[in-house]
Amino acid sequence: MEYRKIKDEDNDGGGSSSGDLESLRGKPISVTNVASKSSELANWKRKSVVTLALTVLTSSQAILIVWSKRAGKYEYSVTTANFLVETLKCALSLAALARIWNHEGVTDDNRLSTTLDEVIVYPIPAVLYLVKNLLQYYIFAYVDAPGYQILKNLNIISTGVLYRIILKKKLSEIQWAAFILLCCGCTTAQLNSNSDRVLQTPLQGWIMAIVMALLSGFAGVYTEAIMKKRPSRNINVQNFWLYVFGMAFNAVAIVIQDFDAVMNKGFFHGYSFITVLMILNHALSGIAVSMVMKYADNIVKVYSTSVAMLLTAVVSVFLFGFHLSLAFFLGSIVVSVSVYLHSAGKLQR
Amino acid sequence: MEYRKIKDEDNDGGGSSSGDLESLRGKPISVTNVASKSSELANWKRKSVVTLALTVLTSSQAILIVWSKRAGKYEYSVTTANFLVETLKCALSLAALARIWNHEGVTDDNRLSTTLDEVIVYPIPAVLYLVKNLLQYYIFAYVDAPGYQILKNLNIISTGVLYRIILKKKLSEIQWAAFILLCCGCTTAQLNSNSDRVLQTPLQGWIMAIVMALLSGFAGVYTEAIMKKRPSRNINVQNFWLYVFGMAFNAVAIVIQDFDAVMNKGFFHGYSFITVLMILNHALSGIAVSMVMKYADNIVKVYSTSVAMLLTAVVSVFLFGFHLSLAFFLGSIVVSVSVYLHSAGKLQR
Repeated sequence: MEYRKIKDEDNDGGGSSSGDLESLRGKPISVTNVASKSSELANWKRKSVVTLALTVLTSSQAILIVWSKRAGKYEYSVTTANFLVETLKCALSLAALARIWNHEGVTDDNRLSTTLDEVIVYPIPAVLYLVKNLLQYYIFAYVDAPGYQILKNLNIISTGVLYRIILKKKLSEIQWAAFILLCCGCTTAQLNSNSDRVLQTPLQGWIMAIVMALLSGFAGVYTEAIMKKRPSRNINVQNFWLYVFGMAFNAVAIVIQDFDAVMNKGFFHGYSFITVLMILNHALSGIAVSMVMKYADNIVKVYSTSVAMLLTAVVSVFLFGFHLSLAFFLGSIVVSVSVYLHSAGKLQR
Repeated sequence: MEYRKIKDEDNDGGGSSSGDLESLRGKPISVTNVASKSSELANWKRKSVVTLALTVLTSSQAILIVWSKRAGKYEYSVTTANFLVETLKCALSLAALARIWNHEGVTDDNRLSTTLDEVIVYPIPAVLYLVKNLLQYYIFAYVDAPGYQILKNLNIISTGVLYRIILKKKLSEIQWAAFILLCCGCTTAQLNSNSDRVLQTPLQGWIMAIVMALLSGFAGVYTEAIMKKRPSRNINVQNFWLYVFGMAFNAVAIVIQDFDAVMNKGFFHGYSFITVLMILNHALSGIAVSMVMKYADNIVKVYSTSVAMLLTAVVSVFLFGFHLSLAFFLGSIVVSVSVYLHSAGKLQR
């Protein structure tokens, strides 16, 4: 299978991206590894910066969504906004590449031209997300929207399981415990008086929720496999190809779903200042996700977005006068303990 | 201070009760420690049996309370029932002692007569519980009954902190994380649509809840210190003295609170079959708690009663047709992970 092949190549040549603070601590200090030590420190710093960026961008994303809801409903086409997000990401990747070509010249690692063998895997995550988004329309026959938000926490578990199976990266037992806690903590933080309804979800709803979680987890893990398959390949080239296929699939979605609206009311109908901010935010978040996939991993991504969810709620208290529930406090404590256990679990190995 | 002295003596001579499965695993197998190995295995078995007994008795206690509520309100005096519980525990301890005297004869460890130095500490837990029970009447000015049930989970944290400070026994960082999770998990499992009210508790209510948690934790930890101060002293003698003071304090409580009712309607007014079962159950649970204090510790007791709380809810589904909430499932998973982490955290040392 394709992803198995990717993994094997990654194992052979891709050691540089796995260095982190913990492997650094484990090594005895000697003259010979001073160079590798400073490169590992640089890797760890880069990993921290992209993780922080993802957390801040994801938090502000959710806040923009709340803001846009408060400001009233804007009748723009979601598919056109998604297309613009992909286009903006593509443009930003090209701009970054142009700068690199100016400074370093065109090399094997940063040239845009590619082989069929390299490019053939890039459409796969886009296809997986497309199938998942299509299923999303059908699941609402079985669950309401708040129930779906709760079931989406299954993504955490599916990502962990697929990360283990497909990328063959091991988590310690403590880290697995931390992962289960992360899922429980996030769900607890979202509990409200109507949450129990989700227990009445029929079997079809559960199956669809699990399939969607697996598709979403698989897309994430597959993207990581693609980004890490060629560790020395410039990330902007990888992003460019990933986003070009994203643009293509979203163009198809516009034609299928919103052709009439775009033809009659125009491509940008219903756009507002907040819509533009949201597109900008989604584009930057998307690039941050790619960087986390390249320089960190899916586990870091899941923790980062979970912590962002909690930060959003706290910020919303000040911005929108939200009230925090006891369940939110308890869930936040469980998530915090999970973050601690994830790093404590690493140290044991 | 008195409890410091107890601890020091315990450290000098009381190593026999600290053996458990984990310390067993850590030792290399040799001819010389086969004897200590089999004694440690016996200790571990005894610890498991008393822990299981406490869990089952605590679960059935809660189920009896639900049953008695369903069967209608019985207007018996709580103080007379408490007095009978203490009397029954005293009688059972004496019966066990009589049997031991018949088999082994009277020795220094199992004789009932005692010194002032030994006996002077036994009333202290009874006094602490008395003060705590008095405070209980006043806290309801600030919190409602379900809110108080939630605040009672602070006992978990206070027990852990006092166990560390007073008995000077260390928990690993993973075990502390597990303890915080146990508190969050138990609280989450008890959440209902009115739980958020507890966040409106005024400062006085919080202070009283914390003081009560400290009193309860202190009483538990102090009882453990008493039981372990003299490891070779027969547990039935220690129980006898503990319960004699319990009888005395409950006799005082009868006079203060229910003197008129007992005089006019009789000591056993309002007693039913369920009341008798509850007295029997409380007496056996009390003895199980003493045994857990002697052969295990307060941490085991807290885990045992927390798991019992969850078992009660599950059994109530079958017995009384209760519905389990999503919060209960999430809390149960967090408690289960906490139990796992508590034992996984031990292995690291």
